Parts: sequence; C-alpha cells; structure tokens
Amino acid sequence: MESFDPVDPGFADRVRESFGRQAFMKTIGALLTKVSPGEVHVELPFRNDLTQQHGFLHAAVMTAIVDTACGFAALTLAPRDAAVLTVEYKVNFMSPGSGERITAHARVLKRGRAVTVCAGDVYARQAGRERHIATMIATIANVTERPNLVG
Amino acid sequence: MESFDPVDPGFADRVRESFGRQAFMKTIGALLTKVSPGEVHVELPFRNDLTQQHGFLHAAVMTAIVDTACGFAALTLAPRDAAVLTVEYKVNFMSPGSGERITAHARVLKRGRAVTVCAGDVYARQAGRERHIATMIATIANVTERPNLVG
Amino acid sequence: MESFDPVDPGFADRVRESFGRQAFMKTIGALLTKVSPGEVHVELPFRNDLTQQHGFLHAAVMTAIVDTACGFAALTLAPRDAAVLTVEYKVNFMSPGSGERITAHARVLKRGRAVTVCAGDVYARQAGRERHIATMIATIANVTERPNLVG
Amino acid sequence: MESFDPVDPGFADRVRESFGRQAFMKTIGALLTKVSPGEVHVELPFRNDLTQQHGFLHAAVMTAIVDTACGFAALTLAPRDAAVLTVEYKVNFMSPGSGERITAHARVLKRGRAVTVCAGDVYARQAGRERHIATMIATIANVTERPNLVG
Repeated sequence: MESFDPVDPGFADRVRESFGRQAFMKTIGALLTKVSPGEVHVELPFRNDLTQQHGFLHAAVMTAIVDTACGFAALTLAPRDAAVLTVEYKVNFMSPGSGERITAHARVLKRGRAVTVCAGDVYARQAGRERHIATMIATIANVTERPNLVG
Repeated sequence: MESFDPVDPGFADRVRESFGRQAFMKTIGALLTKVSPGEVHVELPFRNDLTQQHGFLHAAVMTAIVDTACGFAALTLAPRDAAVLTVEYKVNFMSPGSGERITAHARVLKRGRAVTVCAGDVYARQAGRERHIATMIATIANVTERPNLVG
Repeated sequence: MESFDPVDPGFADRVRESFGRQAFMKTIGALLTKVSPGEVHVELPFRNDLTQQHGFLHAAVMTAIVDTACGFAALTLAPRDAAVLTVEYKVNFMSPGSGERITAHARVLKRGRAVTVCAGDVYARQAGRERHIATMIATIANVTERPNLVG
Repeated sequence: MESFDPVDPGFADRVRESFGRQAFMKTIGALLTKVSPGEVHVELPFRNDLTQQHGFLHAAVMTAIVDTACGFAALTLAPRDAAVLTVEYKVNFMSPGSGERITAHARVLKRGRAVTVCAGDVYARQAGRERHIATMIATIANVTERPNLVG
C-alpha cells in the first residue's frame, strides 16, 4: 500500500468533525474507528432494523459504511478548504451480511487533481471469525471552489 | 423498453409481501409505488436523519431505494419459489440529493437464467420540478435452490 | 432523452478528426457512423481476429467501441480547446457477441463541469435481427488545462 | 491474499490452451506470463496501433488484458468441463497508458458457485519504473451446462 502525506496537518480532526455531521451515520449507528493519511475505517454493530427480507444486513447499509469510509479516506488528503463528493461507486457483494459487527476499510488508490480513486472492503465478524463480504471501488471528486461545501 | 411475461401470476403480491419484510425500507420510510412485470418504483420522502455532512441525502440512501427497486424488478419475473440476491451494482451520482421526494425507477434490461441485469434511475422532485440525480446498473442473481431464501 | 447545445459549432469535424487519430479504432476496423450533440454511434464489422476462445467477439472489443462512442459523445459538448479522458466505466455483457455487425450507441446523461456521465449500449445485428448485447455507464473527465491533449 | 486449491490438477495447461485460442490476444500481441491457482498475469508490449487519439494505450486495450487475466484466474479454479463468461466489469483508469510494457495481474477474490469475483490491476513499466495505471473488479459466471463452451 502506498503511503501518503496529508497537505492539512489537521486532517484527522476535520474528518472526525465532518463524520459527526453525517446524520445518516448516526441513524444507522456507525462509528469512525480509524483515520490516518489515505485510510479510514468505519464500524457498524449489526441491527435488525437495517436488514433486507432475508434477515441479512441490507446491501445498501454495507454500501453506506464503505462509501463513507472511501469519501473520508479521500478527505484525509485534501486541502483544508476542500470538500469531497462521491462521483460514482461499484460494489460486489460476496457473502451475506450477517454477524455481530460489520467493518469497512477504505484506502486511497490514486490521489488525482480532479478525482481521487479509493478501494474499500467490508468484513463481517461472527463468532470470532472475520469474512470478507463486499468490495468497492469509488471515484471521489475533489471540490475546492464551493466554499459552502466544507468537509 | 422490452415487455416481459411474469412466470408467477401472483408476482405483485409476492413483491409487496417481500418489500414489507425489508426492515431497512421501513427504517428509512421508503414506499413501494409501482409493481409491474419487469418494473418497480420506490419512493422516499426526504428526511434530515438520512443526510450526509452537507445536508444532502446520503448517496447510500439513494442507492438503497434504487437497489431495492432493481432487486424487486428482477423478482417480478422470477418463479414463485425463487429468491433474488444482489451480486453487484454501480451507481453514478449526477446531482445532489435534495428535494421533498426522491423516486427510484427500476426496469429489467435482460432476464437471464443465472443472473438478471437491471437499470435504475433516481429522480428528485423539488418545487414541482424533477431532476435525474443518479443512475444504477445492477446484476441480480436468481436463486432457486435455497428454499430458506424465499422472496 | 435530453437535448444538448454544443458550445463549439465545429464539434462534428473535431470529433471526426479525433476519431481518425485513434489508431486502435483503425486496427479493429471501427467506423464513426453518427455524430450529433451529446450522441455518437460507432460500428464494427465482425472479424475473426477480434474473438475470444469461444469464437464470440471479445468483451474488450465491445467495450472498445462503446467506450470510444461515450468519450466522443462527451466531446461533442466540450469547448474547442478541451480534451476528454475516461475516468472509469462499467459494462454488463448480456448476450454473446456474435453477428455480422456490432453497433455502439452512446449518449450524454449528465454534462457536468468536471465530469460528464455517458450511457452506451451495444447491439449485434444477425440475420436481420438486432439484439441488445451490452450496456455501459462511463465517467468522462473534461480536461481543459493540458493543451497537449487536444481532442 | 487467500490461497486456493484448484479442482482440476491440469488447470494450467487448460488455461494456456484456452488463451491460445483467444484470437484477439494474438491480434494485440498479449502474452500469458503467470498461471497459478486463482492468479493469472498477462503482458503486452506497447504498440502504436493500439493507441487512442493522444498516443496513449487505448483504455479498451488495458481492459482487454486485465479482463482476460480475470477470466482465466477464475478458470484456474473451475472444474475440467466448465467454461467462464464475463458477466460484467468496472475499470478505473488512474494514469495514462504509456511505457514499454503493460502488465495485468488478476486474482480471485471470491470463488462462488454461480459467479466468481476477481480483482485485476494494470501496471506500466517505463524507464525501469512501474506505475499502477488501472484497476478492475470483474464478475465471472461459472458455466457448466453448455459443453460447447469448453474453456
């Protein structure tokens, strides 16, 4: 994995503060568990009100935590006054979303001028065992000219 | 748009019943508004607890309703004892998720034996005007041999 | 389908000239058959040297013509001195690539400042019948500050 | 990276023989350079007749070698009488395709019953330096019931 130098030394506080303003993360009970340059982890305790018709975690909830982790991984490398917006993502679901705790790990693959490419993986912990249940590639726009979109 | 013949004449009841068991749809307040062969619509009234850090609807919430619409569009064409599972999807976000009401329209592009390909579009209604804010392509597996996954 | 106004009235000549410089299109024998604002068609006569191990057209060759059509659809709406670069794409292959002639139709879904989103479809004509064999969503970057990348 | 047991001990010969029948790989001059369980590498010497309008390798040519590597990575784990078909893929292009030699590395992420998920990366070697220029996630169908599609 490549290592990255953040341009804003206060990147971690900025990411934590912005995560705190994501109402939807609060709604589903997701937690920010790691913030380092180019890398962010988000965790989610399993809840029955987040499931699909077979009782597994809804695909979109796995998507929510890994999308958020990808966006903030991009934000760790952005200038202080920049924001990030998800342009697109693709997710493959490889195993059902069951288990006590779901974790999303995101890392920057390529930091570009206009867009940053991130990869994310989702793991489910169940009875002490971890399964790789989904994988994402996301394209994140670096937005610098809309000051009303800070963070 | 191609027209499809459902193999199960009770497809609409089956889809409505299965949607009713998606706890996450209830959690976010989504409604099933159209079920016809190969086509499903889902609507979502905007809510502040579903937003990201800029106050727009979280990308994953748009994804949730269009993913659900795509899965059920595939299910309208499946045999009575079959289930559907999302293999993967890709979404492009073209405009911010703002407005009073968000609608997802999904349709089957290709009904295959092992997988069904669906396209979905997300629209935002704001002050009487409708914007096309996101588009999805989804690959849905047709699962027939796991009777515990009905619907 | 939305209608678009090109900012460069000479967009069609610019697209044809740029297509002519795509050596790979010449290598596979692809032809530009339609150029209008936000919409481009590319055709390819089937050839045995473009196949995979089962004798069907290689997935990457279908991708080549629909990717090229998407890129040029974006270019029809770009300023005279701008270039386009493919950021990413996703393709679903719905039927084998067989037939006498393969056609790619691309159209702009959303023309943004930094990126343009295009949709493309691939059709195979065989014995007078047309099948929809693949579908693409592509994200295209609008590049204006690298004058060495014209067209 | 997970390690995999092939079910067919003759998997490497089968993959090499199938690659040899991909006419398009011969047309572009691609070479199979590694075949191990769940992992395949393909190399391509740069050629001017494979370029786009700016003189870089055409995105679809990078796609061709990484798609082929992904398909064969899936095939290394398939039974003797099975074939593989690409259901869909998504590629992000992170740097221009320039350099003397382009390499695609593919590995199986998840071997499922109906579909196998693969990840692929494309590298460009230029003046002794290697750049990561593209990344793919591919969904490959495992086809066992169409004996005319061997390999």
